[in-house]
Amino acid sequence: MTTHRVIRYIKEPDGLPDAGCFRIEDAPIPQAGEGQVLVKTRYLSIDPYMRRMMSGTRSYANPLMVGDIMIGRGAGIVVQSRHPDFKPGDAVQSEFGWREHVVLDGVGLRKVAGDLDPLSLSLGIVGQSGATAWVGLHDIGHIRSGETIVVSAAAGAVGSAVGQIARIRNCRVVGIAGGPAKCRHVVNDLGFDAAVDYKADDFMRQLTDALPDGVDIYFENVGGDVLDAVARHLNVGARIPLCGLISQYNTTQPKGFRNVGALLDKSAMIQGFRIGSHLERRDQALAELLGWWREGKLRYHETVADGMEKAPSALVNVLTGGNTGKQVVRLAQGVAGA
Amino acid sequence: MTTHRVIRYIKEPDGLPDAGCFRIEDAPIPQAGEGQVLVKTRYLSIDPYMRRMMSGTRSYANPLMVGDIMIGRGAGIVVQSRHPDFKPGDAVQSEFGWREHVVLDGVGLRKVAGDLDPLSLSLGIVGQSGATAWVGLHDIGHIRSGETIVVSAAAGAVGSAVGQIARIRNCRVVGIAGGPAKCRHVVNDLGFDAAVDYKADDFMRQLTDALPDGVDIYFENVGGDVLDAVARHLNVGARIPLCGLISQYNTTQPKGFRNVGALLDKSAMIQGFRIGSHLERRDQALAELLGWWREGKLRYHETVADGMEKAPSALVNVLTGGNTGKQVVRLAQGVAGA
Repeated sequence: MTTHRVIRYIKEPDGLPDAGCFRIEDAPIPQAGEGQVLVKTRYLSIDPYMRRMMSGTRSYANPLMVGDIMIGRGAGIVVQSRHPDFKPGDAVQSEFGWREHVVLDGVGLRKVAGDLDPLSLSLGIVGQSGATAWVGLHDIGHIRSGETIVVSAAAGAVGSAVGQIARIRNCRVVGIAGGPAKCRHVVNDLGFDAAVDYKADDFMRQLTDALPDGVDIYFENVGGDVLDAVARHLNVGARIPLCGLISQYNTTQPKGFRNVGALLDKSAMIQGFRIGSHLERRDQALAELLGWWREGKLRYHETVADGMEKAPSALVNVLTGGNTGKQVVRLAQGVAGA
Repeated sequence: MTTHRVIRYIKEPDGLPDAGCFRIEDAPIPQAGEGQVLVKTRYLSIDPYMRRMMSGTRSYANPLMVGDIMIGRGAGIVVQSRHPDFKPGDAVQSEFGWREHVVLDGVGLRKVAGDLDPLSLSLGIVGQSGATAWVGLHDIGHIRSGETIVVSAAAGAVGSAVGQIARIRNCRVVGIAGGPAKCRHVVNDLGFDAAVDYKADDFMRQLTDALPDGVDIYFENVGGDVLDAVARHLNVGARIPLCGLISQYNTTQPKGFRNVGALLDKSAMIQGFRIGSHLERRDQALAELLGWWREGKLRYHETVADGMEKAPSALVNVLTGGNTGKQVVRLAQGVAGA
């Protein structure tokens, strides 16, 4: 086998991305040059921020441009190495892009601990999703024992990590999720103290009932009406780590933060962040998460799509709340020709 | 003279406050008890936050309730003292409320340096307004030399202090103000590097032209469209100390922060604050401001209304941008009966 498949981003979406935004192509499998490794992709991480990268906002340091290979993290196995730190058979994760094989030079390439099974854990709760939750709670939210933490998209990859980390930190955790099944999941499977269904008619009352002591940290993944609703319950000095605005990514008429006055009344703050700006803390986060994982303190759930061609629909799935836990795409196994 | 006048807050405003929201009353002049002082009011400080205190939002620790004496800081002269730290003739400032005399127990009562003339300076740039600017820039904005600072309501009491402090800190300062006269004032009289007129048809282009290097700190006093406009220019890691939302106080349909996504794209933050939550820093702020004042580094401008009965219309004036610099009400002089 000398060719493999890659997926290119070819059109800016109008609303939800559709199949026409991507093109799957055959391409020669690249070879590792001096100092490089060739990795065969096993999992692709599918995350809401990808949609924001596809917006007209060219505000990132490395913007995604029409015509590029679609961005995204991946986990896989080294099949060829001309880098001293890696050998064939090593499990690794990094920024791969949507491709069945990737050549990397070792910068930012991380070996995955052998006891992370499935390997996709290295993308989820013991990977970027978990580290994002950890950094948001600690470095943006300045979490303290005994506080009340609210997280939206609570059943998602980051949200489920937020709640579990906050529980480990001896906080009360309220999750906001869409539908009774996800609400049961975060309480019964993940150990949240309470869950509130934002799709329910009585959402506002549910939220009030769940927050007798107000909110100290609101870990925000969705924005829009949910942000405005939670803002009504902020305590003085509350912090809002802003990780995502899923509800606003597919609209050209974003709702914004109508209740921004709550920040004034409560001396509260909201701060956007991304894990890529906190790489010096990511190692510490991943080490602590791995420790908790080995102690059996972390639960996880995945939504798995099989086949790289499913990546576009998997992205739509996370943008419409179709996933529970981490959404990944699993690629077919088999040794690549090297 | 055994009676004096007080102004009571008697009705929640619908939009801008009007005369019907207040009632002027005659009342007996109180006497200082043991450990207390009697102060004759010389100036009342008139500030936009007062309107927010009159809203239905009962979110402050000490909310203003219908029927209360109207709140507000004042400066005046001690006429009677049974407190060891104060003697008749001392110039002092504190929270007075809208009244011609006030009895205070010394907590929070500050003597005013004798070289602050007029005494109203102790309410403005060398007082609460200046300290609010100082705390917002330092403790919320974490100002650093060489940064670009934008401030709205730039010709107001706090805004004019923000720009001058930022200039002293070796920053580039762009003020946003309403109309050409105020724009000229902040550049020519206060030493800002540039000014942008938010009422001008080409406001957006003026703003872009004034911000070739983006915005590191946006000191926000007004909210609404101006906030959204400035958010387009935020640099990565920008900070928005949120001091006020004047443009939103008199509406029941607040515009909110539509461009909250900019915080996400730029890893930026907005944080509400009030000087009352930073009292441990206020002394430091006031000391530094007084030093700068004595060195001739601070300019000021006041809008003065004469007579306590003008306080309600003076409040409307600050809410509609009628003031330049600090708005105060000056009460008639003359020794009170004690």
